[in-house]
Amino acid sequence: VSLAWMGGELRCQCIHTHSKFIPPKNIQDVKLTQSGPHCKNVEVIATLKDGREVCLEPTAPWVKMIIKAILDKAQGNAP
Amino acid sequence: VSLAWMGGELRCQCIHTHSKFIPPKNIQDVKLTQSGPHCKNVEVIATLKDGREVCLEPTAPWVKMIIKAILDKAQGNAP
Repeated sequence: VSLAWMGGELRCQCIHTHSKFIPPKNIQDVKLTQSGPHCKNVEVIATLKDGREVCLEPTAPWVKMIIKAILDKAQGNAP
Repeated sequence: VSLAWMGGELRCQCIHTHSKFIPPKNIQDVKLTQSGPHCKNVEVIATLKDGREVCLEPTAPWVKMIIKAILDKAQGNAP
């Protein structure tokens, strides 16, 4: 974890977004970055289980569905 | 970005979760990590604009609300 990472990146991270559906089972984590002075776009970056990082389109229904699925899984584990 | 990070961490990252509401404007990004062999819990880690990282409770309604707010902001920026 570098200082640059801790303080947030200095520019947009995504040049283009992956448009094809990625099954949730292939996804390790999803990072949502707010827009701000560093970048005017909300950015969604998924880290896949094979280590690749891909940018996803935050407005795509399947992307929202994956985020909801991860949160719903947490609900299932709650006491 | 270290190799360990790329391949996913090897254990749970969150020991306890922050229970108090954090205003979305103080949040830089939110990372949702799926449960898996490394950790049985879904983990939600927010990076604040001051660089601090805090674990959030994935089942808390305000946490879901913040995630939805970030995605809705993307919707507003879409063409």
